[in-house]
Order: sequence, then structure tokens, then C-alpha cells
Amino acid sequence: MNDLEKTLAEVAGGTLSPASAAERLKGGEVRYLDEFAALDLGRAARKGVPEVVYARGKSPAQVARICAALLESTERVILSSPHGEHEAAVREALPETPIHPAGRSLVLGSGEPGLTGGRVGAVSAGTSDLPVLEEALAVCREMGTTTLTFHDVGVAGIHRLAGPLQQLRDFDPDCLIVAAGMEGALPSVVSGLVSVPVIGLPTSTGYGLGGDGTAAILGMLQTCSPGLSVVNVDNGVGAGATAALIANRAAARKPA
Amino acid sequence: MNDLEKTLAEVAGGTLSPASAAERLKGGEVRYLDEFAALDLGRAARKGVPEVVYARGKSPAQVARICAALLESTERVILSSPHGEHEAAVREALPETPIHPAGRSLVLGSGEPGLTGGRVGAVSAGTSDLPVLEEALAVCREMGTTTLTFHDVGVAGIHRLAGPLQQLRDFDPDCLIVAAGMEGALPSVVSGLVSVPVIGLPTSTGYGLGGDGTAAILGMLQTCSPGLSVVNVDNGVGAGATAALIANRAAARKPA
Amino acid sequence: MNDLEKTLAEVAGGTLSPASAAERLKGGEVRYLDEFAALDLGRAARKGVPEVVYARGKSPAQVARICAALLESTERVILSSPHGEHEAAVREALPETPIHPAGRSLVLGSGEPGLTGGRVGAVSAGTSDLPVLEEALAVCREMGTTTLTFHDVGVAGIHRLAGPLQQLRDFDPDCLIVAAGMEGALPSVVSGLVSVPVIGLPTSTGYGLGGDGTAAILGMLQTCSPGLSVVNVDNGVGAGATAALIANRAAARKPA
Amino acid sequence: MNDLEKTLAEVAGGTLSPASAAERLKGGEVRYLDEFAALDLGRAARKGVPEVVYARGKSPAQVARICAALLESTERVILSSPHGEHEAAVREALPETPIHPAGRSLVLGSGEPGLTGGRVGAVSAGTSDLPVLEEALAVCREMGTTTLTFHDVGVAGIHRLAGPLQQLRDFDPDCLIVAAGMEGALPSVVSGLVSVPVIGLPTSTGYGLGGDGTAAILGMLQTCSPGLSVVNVDNGVGAGATAALIANRAAARKPA
Amino acid sequence: MNDLEKTLAEVAGGTLSPASAAERLKGGEVRYLDEFAALDLGRAARKGVPEVVYARGKSPAQVARICAALLESTERVILSSPHGEHEAAVREALPETPIHPAGRSLVLGSGEPGLTGGRVGAVSAGTSDLPVLEEALAVCREMGTTTLTFHDVGVAGIHRLAGPLQQLRDFDPDCLIVAAGMEGALPSVVSGLVSVPVIGLPTSTGYGLGGDGTAAILGMLQTCSPGLSVVNVDNGVGAGATAALIANRAAARKPA
Amino acid sequence: MNDLEKTLAEVAGGTLSPASAAERLKGGEVRYLDEFAALDLGRAARKGVPEVVYARGKSPAQVARICAALLESTERVILSSPHGEHEAAVREALPETPIHPAGRSLVLGSGEPGLTGGRVGAVSAGTSDLPVLEEALAVCREMGTTTLTFHDVGVAGIHRLAGPLQQLRDFDPDCLIVAAGMEGALPSVVSGLVSVPVIGLPTSTGYGLGGDGTAAILGMLQTCSPGLSVVNVDNGVGAGATAALIANRAAARKPA
Amino acid sequence: MNDLEKTLAEVAGGTLSPASAAERLKGGEVRYLDEFAALDLGRAARKGVPEVVYARGKSPAQVARICAALLESTERVILSSPHGEHEAAVREALPETPIHPAGRSLVLGSGEPGLTGGRVGAVSAGTSDLPVLEEALAVCREMGTTTLTFHDVGVAGIHRLAGPLQQLRDFDPDCLIVAAGMEGALPSVVSGLVSVPVIGLPTSTGYGLGGDGTAAILGMLQTCSPGLSVVNVDNGVGAGATAALIANRAAARKPA
Amino acid sequence: MNDLEKTLAEVAGGTLSPASAAERLKGGEVRYLDEFAALDLGRAARKGVPEVVYARGKSPAQVARICAALLESTERVILSSPHGEHEAAVREALPETPIHPAGRSLVLGSGEPGLTGGRVGAVSAGTSDLPVLEEALAVCREMGTTTLTFHDVGVAGIHRLAGPLQQLRDFDPDCLIVAAGMEGALPSVVSGLVSVPVIGLPTSTGYGLGGDGTAAILGMLQTCSPGLSVVNVDNGVGAGATAALIANRAAARKPA
Repeated sequence: MNDLEKTLAEVAGGTLSPASAAERLKGGEVRYLDEFAALDLGRAARKGVPEVVYARGKSPAQVARICAALLESTERVILSSPHGEHEAAVREALPETPIHPAGRSLVLGSGEPGLTGGRVGAVSAGTSDLPVLEEALAVCREMGTTTLTFHDVGVAGIHRLAGPLQQLRDFDPDCLIVAAGMEGALPSVVSGLVSVPVIGLPTSTGYGLGGDGTAAILGMLQTCSPGLSVVNVDNGVGAGATAALIANRAAARKPA
Repeated sequence: MNDLEKTLAEVAGGTLSPASAAERLKGGEVRYLDEFAALDLGRAARKGVPEVVYARGKSPAQVARICAALLESTERVILSSPHGEHEAAVREALPETPIHPAGRSLVLGSGEPGLTGGRVGAVSAGTSDLPVLEEALAVCREMGTTTLTFHDVGVAGIHRLAGPLQQLRDFDPDCLIVAAGMEGALPSVVSGLVSVPVIGLPTSTGYGLGGDGTAAILGMLQTCSPGLSVVNVDNGVGAGATAALIANRAAARKPA
Repeated sequence: MNDLEKTLAEVAGGTLSPASAAERLKGGEVRYLDEFAALDLGRAARKGVPEVVYARGKSPAQVARICAALLESTERVILSSPHGEHEAAVREALPETPIHPAGRSLVLGSGEPGLTGGRVGAVSAGTSDLPVLEEALAVCREMGTTTLTFHDVGVAGIHRLAGPLQQLRDFDPDCLIVAAGMEGALPSVVSGLVSVPVIGLPTSTGYGLGGDGTAAILGMLQTCSPGLSVVNVDNGVGAGATAALIANRAAARKPA
Repeated sequence: MNDLEKTLAEVAGGTLSPASAAERLKGGEVRYLDEFAALDLGRAARKGVPEVVYARGKSPAQVARICAALLESTERVILSSPHGEHEAAVREALPETPIHPAGRSLVLGSGEPGLTGGRVGAVSAGTSDLPVLEEALAVCREMGTTTLTFHDVGVAGIHRLAGPLQQLRDFDPDCLIVAAGMEGALPSVVSGLVSVPVIGLPTSTGYGLGGDGTAAILGMLQTCSPGLSVVNVDNGVGAGATAALIANRAAARKPA
Repeated sequence: MNDLEKTLAEVAGGTLSPASAAERLKGGEVRYLDEFAALDLGRAARKGVPEVVYARGKSPAQVARICAALLESTERVILSSPHGEHEAAVREALPETPIHPAGRSLVLGSGEPGLTGGRVGAVSAGTSDLPVLEEALAVCREMGTTTLTFHDVGVAGIHRLAGPLQQLRDFDPDCLIVAAGMEGALPSVVSGLVSVPVIGLPTSTGYGLGGDGTAAILGMLQTCSPGLSVVNVDNGVGAGATAALIANRAAARKPA
Repeated sequence: MNDLEKTLAEVAGGTLSPASAAERLKGGEVRYLDEFAALDLGRAARKGVPEVVYARGKSPAQVARICAALLESTERVILSSPHGEHEAAVREALPETPIHPAGRSLVLGSGEPGLTGGRVGAVSAGTSDLPVLEEALAVCREMGTTTLTFHDVGVAGIHRLAGPLQQLRDFDPDCLIVAAGMEGALPSVVSGLVSVPVIGLPTSTGYGLGGDGTAAILGMLQTCSPGLSVVNVDNGVGAGATAALIANRAAARKPA
Repeated sequence: MNDLEKTLAEVAGGTLSPASAAERLKGGEVRYLDEFAALDLGRAARKGVPEVVYARGKSPAQVARICAALLESTERVILSSPHGEHEAAVREALPETPIHPAGRSLVLGSGEPGLTGGRVGAVSAGTSDLPVLEEALAVCREMGTTTLTFHDVGVAGIHRLAGPLQQLRDFDPDCLIVAAGMEGALPSVVSGLVSVPVIGLPTSTGYGLGGDGTAAILGMLQTCSPGLSVVNVDNGVGAGATAALIANRAAARKPA
Repeated sequence: MNDLEKTLAEVAGGTLSPASAAERLKGGEVRYLDEFAALDLGRAARKGVPEVVYARGKSPAQVARICAALLESTERVILSSPHGEHEAAVREALPETPIHPAGRSLVLGSGEPGLTGGRVGAVSAGTSDLPVLEEALAVCREMGTTTLTFHDVGVAGIHRLAGPLQQLRDFDPDCLIVAAGMEGALPSVVSGLVSVPVIGLPTSTGYGLGGDGTAAILGMLQTCSPGLSVVNVDNGVGAGATAALIANRAAARKPA
């Protein structure tokens, strides 16, 4: 564990007050916005993951307020799954902030994260899986990892996997994200062929019974390949954060 | 359609009475057992599928009575999924009838069906899928097709598929049955590589969420490979009958 | 298996490189579009099914790009379930390509597929089932089969089945597609009266509990008639491709 | 409404005390057994349905106590779905009471109900549906209706329906009970051919996805035939009581 | 059974051809509209239920065509659940036909059905249940029954039931329809207090888990009151037809 | 909040170490048993609820060890849902400890809890609901409340509710527990008639679709009566603890 | 129980007619609006909860009519979950009535409820939970309780709970409402740390499998903390009414 | 990727035949047992995970045969979830092989795996979660990682987490496995406090609605803490293999 966790453990253990911890940790305090949000400004530092704001269920005004407040203490924020009104409110509130699309997310802010040396490989089963996978990769890049991605490699033409597999071998990733909707079989097939951990990212691509991503996630959960773990349907942020945590741990770890 | 269907169409169309049809068709009449069964003695002839008795939900005495009655007008009967008491009652009622196990079914009766020339290939994903797939193959054999089977070819080691695929090519099947539990991905992978119709046979092998065969059947239904159709979980009889109907149609068809 | 499968098996078996296979097979290579699609240009040849592009989950621009790219190497493409914006983008990108509606799909391109001699019969239970069944029949026609169809033959007036059944007898199909929503009982009833394989095509017609097609597909999966297999709810492409594969196999097969 | 209901309406409306109502109605009081049961002794009179004791969830001793108490004020009791221990406890507690099996139920007590003139027809789809349908018919007979039943008339051989349909026409029932498991299609087919109300009785006969009766009940609920209503899976008591109420109302009704 | 059923039974039994039956029965033939509908013109006569056209899943043009065709051989048609475009197309196609709203349905055509003497009582649990219940009552009135209705009698103020119960007693209905959403408890409570059959009509009124009508229909199916049967969620047509069939049978029945 | 919560809040807030808190609170420390349990010895004091050991998922030896350890620092323990082997292991390990059955639970230990003055009323819908409701009442009594209970008051004879309601009025409870299986309607009906909070306790009594308690809990969650909250199916402990916390808060509260 | 309940019990018990009760209780009668509503004008008095009108499933005109009628006999009405058209109709019908937003509800009417002395604390897990929790708090305030609320205290930064917990301790609430979507863990965590009853209020905030509030409510129902009870997803009215009933009971109760 | 993956990629890419690969890789060939199993003897080498045999769905004889065959080419085998008959068959077939229990699994064989330097921390929420978590830890140990485990740390007493958190900090794990049933909240809470990846392992501990592990897995999938990924309910093998792959990658990785 890093220094941040040490501090947290002291807080949890009763040997350090939250106030003292906040001083010790840059940006560690909680900030209250009116009456609707208590921003956990220390999360990025504590967890090593970027600030992510989920647009769903929040009003455009709330989203804009939260993004603006976060950008006062961090360089970039990922806004996940904004609707058009969310995006408009943010652009109006932050007229000078650079905004880059990343699949179904937006990355707000300027600058580039420093590279950690971690490497994440990624494969998608179909074109429809792109918006979710690109959200995951944006999180990975914000966390400093290098990424290599191959799209549209479905199991209904399994020979298409050969080329990407060879290039991924040369890339030598610390873990793989494999996104798939419909039957969700690609993560199992890939996991059976590689020796690094695989994160299955089910998407809501599909039709009929189970077509909202249920078949895909159940298929990944039923995998016969040990080494595959799963995040929820369309949870690109979770897949990216998990993959980058694995890669960054590997890159930072002192050999045993 | 064959002569049997012609007769049925006439009955349904009102130009032939059921009594007349029964005379025209050997074994076409309905036979009543006490008050609990109305045996459709013409089904084997009409549909071209063997007599199958489902043991579930019937008392051992009822199963024995039905099997005995059917064996008076047909040579062999398939008894699907009998419990121990069902089997005991049948053996006691039919002490001289040969009984052969076929996965989770029993084949009652002697003799061999004539070969039609139809060919059915079969692949299973795991050892646990055997009892159901063997039931399917028993139905295929009763319907006169030749079969070639490969077991335990899971997607978590997809290279294992290469050998069976080459041997199946030489066999030149009219269709394939692919049985799988857990994530049920094998039928999609196989269907993406062959040009004959594939029958997906999901099995109740699995664990946790979706492990009763739900994940397997949903995965097959969500397939991205056109040419794959599905029967219900553990429905070996349905998979076998469908495959053999396809193969027998192909074998009997006059070229266009 | 045909020559295409032979090549694939060699690739899968390690005795032929993908590059060599691509040369041997006309149109067999994978083509990459920007970063969002890896078109499996060999699928039509390998599987014997037409090119189908699923509009759902793709942007109008992506759909137009993919259709245009496929039409460079194949004569016709089926675009499944496009929304209005998808269709507009395609018409703008391909202003001179003939476009024909086929239920909820569009057939892009000119010319006519050669007839294989395969024959597919089709029955729908209600008017609401038409858009999905017509998509299936478009696939059948693209695959060279002749089709004969009867609409609106519900089980709540089972006598209406008599007329179509007689005409289908004269047509002598290699298999039947039976589409139904609501209770989904028609495929079972039909399958009990014919000796060819039946493909059940459940539709999302219905109301209340199970009315999204769940009741229909469960009913077909629970069928008491061996010889009925099923595709997912509203999966017209899958039903059509399966039926045509069966019919084409029968038409091409040398008698045993 | 009858006199019983009049009294109840007065109780509910506040113009008659429960005590007075109990005196006015023979057997109308509530009887308390220890601390575990409050027998509604007026239900048989009020509703016109027989006393039914559900064994599930009760201990053998409780079942025996309740049956014995009821038999002090009524001639016969139906014990629904007893296990072996329930039956043993009842036989020990009531050694001189005649006990007759009726499918999965037992009828305790002697004597015969008077005939009302109501007529209930019944059809089952398979042998496995018998235990539940016979429970329904026992309730009908206890309520004084005449019954006519046909078993094992599945939709996979729909021509088998012709004979029973003709005999039911001569019987002229006031309503029909149609029991079916698996795809549960028979009630819809029958309801489409008759002009009397049909009670669909789904049973837990089936396999795989939906095989616990879910497919059957959903199919009946999705029926395209107006005039079909449904009770829960395996609810023979409910189906019988509803059918007999309909028939008895018709038999007792003065023509308009 | 009536004369219509006798004819049908002869058709089903093979002693009468469909053509002869069509002549014998006024309006008994099937009429084909283009290629999308096969109108069962005999259903109204055969079943004794009015013509109902379900708008869902049909195009506005199809709905208008079907309604116009039916009104050539019947006086009135019920159009169930039309959207705005459906209604507009019908009004344009049938500019002189009177159209009356009935809950979520429209009654097209003029004239009044003759009274049969049957009586149907109805109760709704809340204001939101009205559109569905009024559809049911429109069907009852088309079938010639007299109706008496009480609205907004929820179980959370059970004392409100007293008044309606007294008035219903004086009306003396042959059966009751009880509509309820949310927990769906009202049909059980009412059924426990009356001696006529009750049709439970669940509606999609509710919130959160089970709020799409699932809780309501499950509650009615789990009823502890024998004599309650159920139709699907929001199936006003089915509830009305079942109730009117029961009432009309009672009104027409000769005393035993 | 009481003194215990004050301490906890200090621990959570970082102004008191767990070790200091443990000293301050009698029995507040965590005790480790081998490697399988970390007993939260302070919970009874902190929450004001008794020690409850859930037998499910634990071995008989583990259950016995945990009960014995808890009885060293508390007078009585409730063992919830033990199987026969669990009970045997406990009796062998604690041969001198008095053991009293309380529905499906056992109360281990001697002595009587002091009365708090809190009052809890309880009603069950059927005899089958007793084992779960009695578990709830055992928890209430352990927490010092007085209880008054009425059994077998189903909604299918709603007039039976009048008597218990009057007696409960005289008892003047602080809250009510209402247990019901099947359609689970009784809690809504009762809640609509009283002004104290009602805890709905669904039980797994039922049949067919929704009969595992799903219909009951959904019905309670869909209630149209504000003031009803719910615990999970068969969760007698949760219902009892909630009710007693409410009653004890009321009894201890100083008037505003 | 209060005087209102005494009266109701007399009505239910048959010793007081509804008419007499209506006279005795101010506003206790039922008022009929046209044919679509039977307002239970006595509910507010009987239950001690405010008048709440649920907009869903009602037409704007119906909502406006009901609100206007209720405001003739009560000072304020809560309109739950109105759409834009509902609100417009109400504003047009009641141009002089003050309307205050309260989360997803509107409070119509003027004046302030008298304080009861009851105290309700509240915590939400995220910003998206606000509209539902504020509806709950509006109900609490209408019922005369004082409230203290903390927002955005998620379990993914559990240290944020420390501050609110200390302030809630000083407030000394009679019960807590804890609102959470997604995994719904916050109510369990809070309930484990406090000795007052906790009402879990799941919200439909979430994503993917279980993201409609299913995961949240299942998590709360599975709680390992006795003392937590639950209302349905997004049921702010129910949570507020339950909490205020608990608090008001405590505030009004004479010490034991 | 390691050398094994390089070889696999060559096989998949068509530049190396399976036969050649088998020679190159020790134990890489497929071994056929009778007709029921095709052992993937190279998996352990290829994936870096131990041989695991799932007992479910296999006969005792099959399990014994497979275990014996695997032990000819590997030192130890994990047998997951054997029943008593499975274990007996294995002990009879392998009388001299040491067998060690590990939760619900057995480890067959002797010797100790070499340590890799990887470190896996583990926490369970309750005693009932032990059998599954210990299976996961057995897999970790077989894969050469060091483990540190804390049991029975539920969220209903969140202060119990402080001690284990401090000890885990000193251990400095590469990732954590957190097992929980019921509401499954512990993994989210832990993941919010640490900066290493967390594997959520839901167990089938629970009761009522969602108590088969559904609530637990949905809660983990809905987590608001990025960095948490999930395996299926009770999938100890998958959790252990994933965690050890992460830890071993970190231990073997050369710093960036």
C-alpha cells in the first residue's frame, strides 16, 4: 500500500483525525456544494484513479457545478455518459476548458498524465462495443498507462483473433480488457489463450431475450477460464480503473 | 412432404375423416390406456421421429404401461430421464426386452433402424455435457443417421477444436449438434467456422448466477453467427430429432 | 463441408497461414475501417450466408461506411433494423445503389442471387409478426432459395391452418419458418403436423407479463414436438439463414 | 348474490354485528384451535366452495387437528397436496373417516354432495397433468357439478382433439378446464373453438428454461383467444372452484 | 355448445369441409387483405365475442384497412390501444363511422347490441385503473350484458368497500371484474366476500420493484380465495370477454 | 442516541481508539474463534438487539462454538433456523443450558429480559406463517417489549379482522408486525386501518409463480398504504428487531 | 391507538355505521368525483399522514380535479411525481394556491403544520438520490417532525460518514431514513452503528444489471443488520410516512 | 507474455502446427480418456494456473479417472466441490496420494509449489463465506503466492475493519480478494479504502429474495468504487486464479 492508504488506515484505526489527515494529504478534504454534493476530493490521491463524474440522475446544473468544483483542485475530470443537455451546461460553465470525447464520455481539462510504465491491452468484439471500451481506455490513459487496442474481433470468425494476438504478444501487456455484447464469449476465448489477467467488459449490445447485456455478463460470469473477472454491463470506468490499477501495481512493484 | 403429411393435411382440411386416415396409415390410430394416456401411435410414422416417453411427472406404473403399449406396435422406444424407480418398473414389466443406456435415457427394444444416409456430427464442450448429448445421439441413430462425435472441446482452449474440425470435414455431416453448458460459447464459435446448420444444445452445467443453463441458452440465443438455432436446456431429444430431420431430408432429397 | 471450410480447417489446424488462405479465397481477407471495424470479408463465402449489417449500436456514419465498404466486394448487403437516421446516411453515401425494403430491413444493391433449388416455407401467426418474418425471407432469397409464405394464421382459429397446410404440401419445402408472438404456440402446432424441420421465430408482439417475446420464446423452447428449434426474439436474420442453410444443403446434397 | 352475501354485506356495512351474523348463519362463527388456527367455518356456506386444507407449511399435527375440527361441522374436507407424514397423521387422528385419493389431494369424509345441475368439461394435455387436474375435478364434484374429462390431448398432434371436442359438444358444459404444462398452448387452441368460458390450469410439467410452469402460465396469459382466464401453476383447487362457481351460477340462474 | 360450435366440431372432426361450413355460417369465411392479414370473419359468430383489433405492432395503414374490412361484415369493431397515428388513420379511412372512446380503446360503428340479460359487476382499486377497466366494460356491453361499476375502492381504506358491496348485492351480477394495480389485493378481498366468480384484472399501475403490473398479477395468482381467475396485465379485452361469456351463459342457460 | 453510539461515533470520527472504546464499553471487544469467526461482542450493547446466530451456512461445530462463546458474555442467545444437526451439536456442547423453541428458532440461556414498557402487536395471515412470526416475537421479548398476537387472519375472510383489531386497540401497541405469505395483502389492509407503523413480514408460503415469497414481498413493497415498511422473506429476526427498536424508542423517549 | 382508530375499529367491528362515523370524524366521508375517484377524505385524520396524490397513470385533468377537491377540506396536498403537463394543469386549476417543489414532488397549499416534537434524521449516498429523499422529507415535515439531512455520503469513502454521524448524534433522531441507489450498502452500514430504527430507501440510480434499483433494494433486504426495514424503489412518500409515524409515536408516547 | 503464449500465438496464427507445439511445450498435448474427456494437459503451463477438476456433473468414476490421469503429468490437482461419493472414488483410486481439504475443495498430491513473491490479501464478511474463500486461497497457494486472511468482518460493524486494514497495510498485497454473501457490501467498502485491485467473491449466503447470492453479486457489480471486479457466485477457483495472476505478474514484472 502507498502512503495514502497508510494515512487512511490510521484514520480508520483511530490514530489520526480526519482533519489532520486532510492536511497531510493534498486535496484530501471533503467539499460541500450547496446541499447536494459532498465531493471526496481525496479519492484521486487515495485510490490512484482519476475523478469521474457520472451524469446520470443529476441535473445539468449539478453536473456543471461538480465538474467546475473538481477542476479547481485537479487537472482533468472524466464526465461519464452525459446527455446533450449535460454537455451543453458544462460547456457553458467552463467555456475555456478543453473537452475531448472518449467514447460515451468526455475528458475535461488540459495537460497529460505522466506515464507509469503500466501497459493495458484491449480487444472489442464488435463496432457497437466501441463507445464503452473507449471510455475504459480514457480512464487507463488518465491513470498513466500505455494502451494497445484491437476492434471488431468477434467469435463468429475466430481466425480474426490471430493477428491481434501476435501484436499483443509483442506489446506484453500487464492485463487485458475484452469488451463484448451479445453472447459475450470473446473474453473467455481470449482468457484461455493468455497468461495475464483479463477484465471482461460486457456491453448492452444484443437483441431479444438477454439482449440488454444480461446474456453477455452471464456468459462471462460462467466462464470456464480461470483468470477472467468481470465488471457490470457498460461499466467502462470500472473496467479501465481495474485494469490500470493492475498495470500500475505491476509497473511500480519491486521484484520479489 | 411425404404421404403421411398428405393424409394429415386432408384430415385437417376436412376431406378425410380421422377414422379413414387411421385405416390408411399403419398404426395411425389413437390408443387409450385406462384414463391417463392417449397414445398417438401415428406420430412415429407421421413425423419420422422415434417414440419417446418422458418419465418426468409420470408414476413408475404409468411409464411401464405406456412403454409396454408402444412396444406392441413399434420396435423400439426411448425412455427419457427415468429415475431408478421408473427403470425398475419398466424392467419388471418388460423382463425380456433388451434395454440399452444412452446417456440419461434408455433405449428399449431390439433390432437396428435402417440407415438413411443422413450424417450428423456432434461436439460437446465438457465431460458433464455427455449424458444429454448421448441422448440426442441415440435419437439420431434411431432415426437412421450415421453420427461422429467429439467430446470435451471447451472454448477455454480453443486450439483443441482444430483436430475434431478436420475429422468432421472428412465426415461431411449434414448438420452439427454442439452441446455446451456454462457460458455456452462453443456453438457460436463452431457455427462461425462451418457452412452447415448447427443445433445448439445448452446443458444445465454451471455455477452461480445463470448456472442452471440460463447463461448457456442465452449465450446461444444471442449468437452473432447466423445458422445457429437452439433447443431448450438439456433437451437432448429435441436436438437429436431436429438434427436427424435435417440430415434425413438432405439424404432423401432429389437434387434440384 | 465445402472448399471454404476445408481452407478454414487448415488455418485452424496450423497447416495454412491466414495470408495464404486469404489469397486462395476470393475476398477472404479482413479489411479495417479506420479504427472501428474489421470486416470479415470472407464470411459470405465461408458460411454461404449474405452480408448482414446490424444497425443497432452503430452511428449512422459507421453504418454508411461499412455498407459502402462491403458493396465494393459483394453485390448486395442486408441492413438490419435501421432507424431513420441510419437509412438517411446510407442513402446519402450510396446515392446510386438500389435499396429495397424487406420488413424491418433494407436490401442494398442490385442484381439477383442465383437459385439453389432449396425451398423454404413460412407461416406467421399475426399481422404484427410480418416485419420480422419478411426480414427472414429476404435472407432466404439472398441465399438463393425459393419461398412460399402464409400470414396471420393464429392458433385461436386453428381451422385457418388447413388451407395453407395443403398449399405448403404441394410446395414441398425443405424446412419451415413459423413466426409467432404472444403465446408462441403456432410453431408447436405446425411442427406436430409436418415431417420437415421447423424453425421457430418468436416476435416481441404481446402484452403484460411476458409480452416482450419472453412468453413466445419460452413456449417454443418448451415445445412437446421434436423437430422444432428456435432463434432469439425478433432474430429474422438468424431464422432465415438457418432455414436457407438447411434447404441449400438438401438441394446440393448427393443422394446417399 | 345469495342470503349469505347479504349478511356479509351488512356486517361489512356496519348494520350487523359479527356475533349476530354468526347466529344467523349456520356454522358462521370463527373457531380457534390452540393458538395456530382461526377456522373460518362460514366459508363453505358463504362462498359455496368446499372446505380445503392446504398441507404445505403446516405440521402433520396441525393438519390433523384442523381436519378433525372441520369435520365436526362439515361432511367432507379436501386435503390438498399432503406429504406422506401429513396423510399418516390424518389417518391416525381420524381412523374411521373414509379417505379417497383425488390426484394429489385426499377427500376426507363420507356421503355425496347433491347435484346442482352445473356441468364442467375438462381436458388435459398430457399424462403428467393428471394429478393436478384430478384435484380440480374433485373440487367440482364436491360442489355438485357433473364432469366429463379427456386426458392426454397435446397440441403436437392437434388432430387428437377432434374426438373429445365432439363428445364435449354433446355434454354441453357450462365451462371448461384445460390443464397443460410445457408450452401451455392447449387452452388457447381449445378456447378458440368453443363459446363457453375456459379456465387455463398451468402445471409444473416441463424442462429447462421455463419448465417449472412459467412457460405454461405465460403462454396462457398471452393468449390471443378472448374468453380464457387463468389460475396459478398447479392450483387445481382454484381452477375447480372457479369452474364450479360458473357452472352452478348458470344452473341456478333464472332466465333473463 | 351452440350451433356454431357444432359446425366447428364437424369441421375439426372431418365430417364437414371448411367451404361448406363457411356457407352454413354467415360471415364464416376467411378474408385475405393484401398479404398481411387473414381476417377470421367467423370469430364473432363462433365465439360470441365482438371483433377486436389490436393496434400494437401494426402500421396505421394496416389498422385502418383491417377495421374497414371488418366493418363491411359486422356493425361495430373495438380498436384496442391505438396511438394517435392509428386513430388518425382510422378517422381518415372511415370519415362517416361514429367513433366512441372507451378507456384506452375506441368503439367504431353505430347501433346498439341487443341485451342478453347477462349482468357483470365491476370494481376498480384506483383512478389509474380506469382506462383498462373501461375497455373491459366496452367489451361486456358489446356482448349484450348490463354492467354496474364502482371506481377507486382501494384496500388501504377497506371500509370504502361496504357501500359498493351493498349496491352490487341488489344488482345480482353473474360475475365480477375487479381491476387493481400496485399490490393487486382487492380481487382477493372481494372474492372472499361474494359467491360469484371473480375475474382479476391486473393493471400496470405501480412503482419500483414489481411496479409494471408484476406484483399485481402475482398477488392475484397467489390468492387464498378460490373462485378468482386472472387475465394478463392490462388485458381489458380478455377480462371483459370472459366475464360476458360467463354472464351470457348464465342468462341463456335452461335451469337444470 | 445512547452512550454506546456516542462512543462509536468517536471511534468513527477518529477521536477515540478502538482499544479505548473497548475498555469503556462492557463487552465491546472483538473475540476471535480459531480462524472462522470474529464475534462482535459489543453489538448487543451498541444496537440494543440480542445476540442472534444464523445457523445456515455454518457447520454444527461452528454453531456450537459460537453459541458457547457468546454465552460467556451474555445471558441468552437466539439461534435462528438450525437444522437437526445444529441443534444436536448445541445440546451436546451446552448440556446444562436451557433451550426453548420459538418458531423456527431456539432461545438458549436462562433468565428473563427486563421489561422496557415497549408494546408490539402482531398478526399472521395463516397457520403456515407461525414459525417465522414466532421467531420475530422471540426477538421482541428478548428486547424487553410486551407482545400481543393474533393468528390466521387471512384477507379471504376480511371480517375475521374485526375482533383482533378491537383487542389490539385496547393493547395500544407502538407498532405492529403483520406476517403473510401468498398474496401478502394483509399488511396493506391492516396498515390502512391503524395509525402506528406496520412492519410487513413476508413468508415463503405459497404455490406456483411467485410462491416462494416473491409475490408476498412484492405486494407489500407495492402497498398503497403509507406507513408500511418491509423486511425480507422469512426474516423474522429483522422484523422483530425493527419492531422492538421502534417500541423501545417510544417507551424511553421523553415527551417533546 | 388514537381516537380515530377507535372509531374505525367500531366501524370494522359492526358497532358503528359508516354514516355515524363520518359525522363523528371531521372530513371522514368519501367524496365521489364524477366517475373516476372516491376520495378517502378521512385518511389524513385516520392515519395521521398527509394527503398524497400520485400523478402517474392519471390524466392532467384528473390530477387537477382531485387536488382541488382535496384542498377544499385540507390545507396542503403533496403531488407526487407530476410530469410537466400535470403541473401545468394544476397551476391552471389552482392559480392562487402556493406551490413549492420538494424533490420530485410538489407541495400545494399554504400554512405550516404544527410541530409534533418528533425528529427524523436522513442521509443520502449520492447526489442522484436527492429528488426521492427530498420527497420523503417533505412528507416528514407535513407530518410535523423536525428533520436533519446529510447528502452524498457514499460507502466508497466510508470516512465521510464520520462527520454526519457526530452531528446526528447531537440531533438525537427517533429514526433515520437512509437513501441509496447502486449497491444500496449505506443503510446497512449506518444501521450497524446506531440504535434507532433505520428506513432503507432504495433509488433507481445505477447502471447495467440490477441498475434500476433492483440491486439496491435486494442489498437492503439482505442486510445483516437487524433494525433496518425497507420501502420500495423510489418510494419517498412511504419512507417519509413510516419515519414520521415512528417519530410521532415516540414524541406522543407517555413513558412506560 | 511468456514463452507459452508465444507458442500459442504461433499455433493460432498458423505458423506452428499443434503437433510441433506439443513437442515444444512439456505436457502440452491433449490426452483422451475413453470417450468422455480430452484433457488439456498444457493448460497449467500455458495459463500459469493449477489443474482444477470440477466435480459437479461428473460421475465419481469419471472424476477419479481424470484426477489420476492428471496426476501422471502434474504434481497436484485441485478437486472442486466434490460430494461424498466423488471423494470416496478418488480415495479408492489414489490410495497413496495425500489429500488435503481446502474449504469445499480437496488438494490432491504432494509437494509444495515454489514461491513467486506475489502477495494476495483476503477478507471474508462472515463465517459462512469460509468454504468458498478457502478454495480461492488454495488456488493462490498452488500458484506460489503468499496469502494473509481475515475472517468475519461484516459491514454491520464496520469498525471491525480497522484492525485487519492495518495488518494488511504492513503485508502490502498486490491485490485483495473480498468474499461476502447477503448484501455483498464489504468489497465496495474495502475497495474505497485501498489502492490495489480488489476481486469481489460473492457467496450464496443469504435468505429470502436474492438470498442465493443474487443480491451479493448485483451489489458488487453496482459498486460505486472503481477498481473492483467480480467473479460468479461461489467461484472460489476463479477468484483465486485471478488474484494470483495479478500478484504473479506484479512479482515477475521488470520495473518500467
